[in-house]
Amino acid sequence: MSADGQLQDASSSLMQVSADPNVSESSLSALTTWVTPTDRYFIRHHFAQVPSGERATWHLTVDGEVHRPFTLSFTDLLALPSQEVVVTTECAGNSRSYLTPPAEGLAFRHGAVSTARWKGVPLRILLEQAGVKDTAVEVLFEGADSGREEEDGVVSDLSYRRSLPLAKAQHPETLLAYEMNGVALTPDHGFPLRLVVPRWYGMASVKWLTRIEVLAQPFEGFFQTRRYVMIPEGPEQDFDRVPVTVLQVKSLMTSPRHGEVIQPGECTLQGFAWSGAGEITRVDVSTDGGHSWQEATLHGEAAPNAWRQWAYRWQTPSPGHFICMVRATDSAGNTQPSTIPWNFRGYANNAIHTVALEVPARLAIPS
Amino acid sequence: MSADGQLQDASSSLMQVSADPNVSESSLSALTTWVTPTDRYFIRHHFAQVPSGERATWHLTVDGEVHRPFTLSFTDLLALPSQEVVVTTECAGNSRSYLTPPAEGLAFRHGAVSTARWKGVPLRILLEQAGVKDTAVEVLFEGADSGREEEDGVVSDLSYRRSLPLAKAQHPETLLAYEMNGVALTPDHGFPLRLVVPRWYGMASVKWLTRIEVLAQPFEGFFQTRRYVMIPEGPEQDFDRVPVTVLQVKSLMTSPRHGEVIQPGECTLQGFAWSGAGEITRVDVSTDGGHSWQEATLHGEAAPNAWRQWAYRWQTPSPGHFICMVRATDSAGNTQPSTIPWNFRGYANNAIHTVALEVPARLAIPS
Repeated sequence: MSADGQLQDASSSLMQVSADPNVSESSLSALTTWVTPTDRYFIRHHFAQVPSGERATWHLTVDGEVHRPFTLSFTDLLALPSQEVVVTTECAGNSRSYLTPPAEGLAFRHGAVSTARWKGVPLRILLEQAGVKDTAVEVLFEGADSGREEEDGVVSDLSYRRSLPLAKAQHPETLLAYEMNGVALTPDHGFPLRLVVPRWYGMASVKWLTRIEVLAQPFEGFFQTRRYVMIPEGPEQDFDRVPVTVLQVKSLMTSPRHGEVIQPGECTLQGFAWSGAGEITRVDVSTDGGHSWQEATLHGEAAPNAWRQWAYRWQTPSPGHFICMVRATDSAGNTQPSTIPWNFRGYANNAIHTVALEVPARLAIPS
Repeated sequence: MSADGQLQDASSSLMQVSADPNVSESSLSALTTWVTPTDRYFIRHHFAQVPSGERATWHLTVDGEVHRPFTLSFTDLLALPSQEVVVTTECAGNSRSYLTPPAEGLAFRHGAVSTARWKGVPLRILLEQAGVKDTAVEVLFEGADSGREEEDGVVSDLSYRRSLPLAKAQHPETLLAYEMNGVALTPDHGFPLRLVVPRWYGMASVKWLTRIEVLAQPFEGFFQTRRYVMIPEGPEQDFDRVPVTVLQVKSLMTSPRHGEVIQPGECTLQGFAWSGAGEITRVDVSTDGGHSWQEATLHGEAAPNAWRQWAYRWQTPSPGHFICMVRATDSAGNTQPSTIPWNFRGYANNAIHTVALEVPARLAIPS
């Protein structure tokens, strides 16, 4: 493979997509374990500055449509019942680079997806403590991160705010997390406290959490209605802006990597598959550009909110170039499409992952 | 459009694709004229060092399967009959970025295509002077540029060499050019002398030319048989490596640019169309993602080896996001496909050019 080649992934485990704000994705080749080590976990900030909260001075306010609004210290929080949950989180913009024509937004390749073991307090405990009124429809989460956004020539100062429908907020596994992979959150991942919303794209899991407000009306803020919505082709009046919510069924091949030169013989294709709508029931692999498909084996640990590992042992023909694909199906009957319809901000691209592999010929270079 | 957007082209006229070797493509928005100004003309070197030839010491050798081999000084060359020809040249790797899965090689977007007015000596004059033997089948061209190449673990020292079939070498418009757009070649474009092969992809137009060798056998050097050949998916033994030669029919929209925000009302879509196999007979435009097509107008100058300009006046609906496409057809009946089959090095991508345009809504940003 020549030095100018673009086929191979970078060898470092995190690849920067943007410096300001800091956004980095994992190299697929670094995603080798069911739980992703924190230093390989993708990072998606929305503003340049990372909030520098401290546990000693941090407070969380719970108010809005509740009977008993309150403010909590970190010590108060640690005294509440805790729970651990392993969750796969994918950035809504993951795989954006592969849309045609190119979509607006950060040029993520496939690595803005990771899995962590989170520990924290189930959100519903705080909601029960506050006493949600019958008027409530959504719960709004506010992070300590803020900055400026521009759209259509209008510049605004914003903090990062996102809401959840009440039912999702009350789900037993929606967590206020203070530990990630067994230790306190790092600043990049929301220290001291963040929301973790299993089965939803990552924008829902608000970091650096400072306020929880129960709402009687749907939230219509910038990150709820101007970002993370599907904007298809066509005149605006012809469609509704459907919000991005539940993870689409998807799979990735993490080894071999796209562009890898493999030796003749047996080669194990492997990777991960996940879905927000159900469990992964099968993964199929093609080694001939989608002409034929064979079922892969699901293996390793399984958890309701986490990806499954898959593997397929392939007898490589030799020599040549082979287009390999992986396609997951979930228990709700969803399967991955060959391509997704273009949407302006390139969200939720779960098109079949396709890689090219080379079995090399043994030839000298002609002069 | 946000600051992190990837939709818009860079505003500079040349965008670097590689620093070493120097490779730069034009910004589509800089391709505004039928003849491309030299400082906007794409650059594709194969090695780090640009040869620093001088006219005073430069010599061209013509030998091989000829009756009267000779060596020519630059003064000798200037004394020969000259000719001007306007030629559109496209890099074989142009539009490589848009293949799925990604192809091996420099990540060109759509701007590695340009048009220049070349002046020089028709190659056939030198071939007649040398007297080509009946045994001749090809003519080999050697540039002064050289360096190292690695493939399959084998490293070789190479100079840039490419051959042409005898008939193409003898074509009246195959030129040994010493002027580009009215002045001496620049170092980046082959000073003091280069080959210009109309209707073929750019790799044939050898720069910094020092030797012309008439061959009795087909040339099988690195840049002839290991590069610039179509390597499709599948076992190597199942196909021949078809060389890249004649320009595929293709068109580009240069204005508006992909991602541009346009105002409601009338908008002129415009760009270029070309083909190595014939003249452009029609250009069609879609403003609804390929559902319907309308014929564009061909206008401006026409020449056998150069692109045509096209334009289409569009009444923009408002507001919304619109996927616009352009598709050219040539006199040989070729038309552009929606996608091309994957090939390992991503050559000759002439898939329909697709851009997204926005007609903005006038809305304030919700907080």
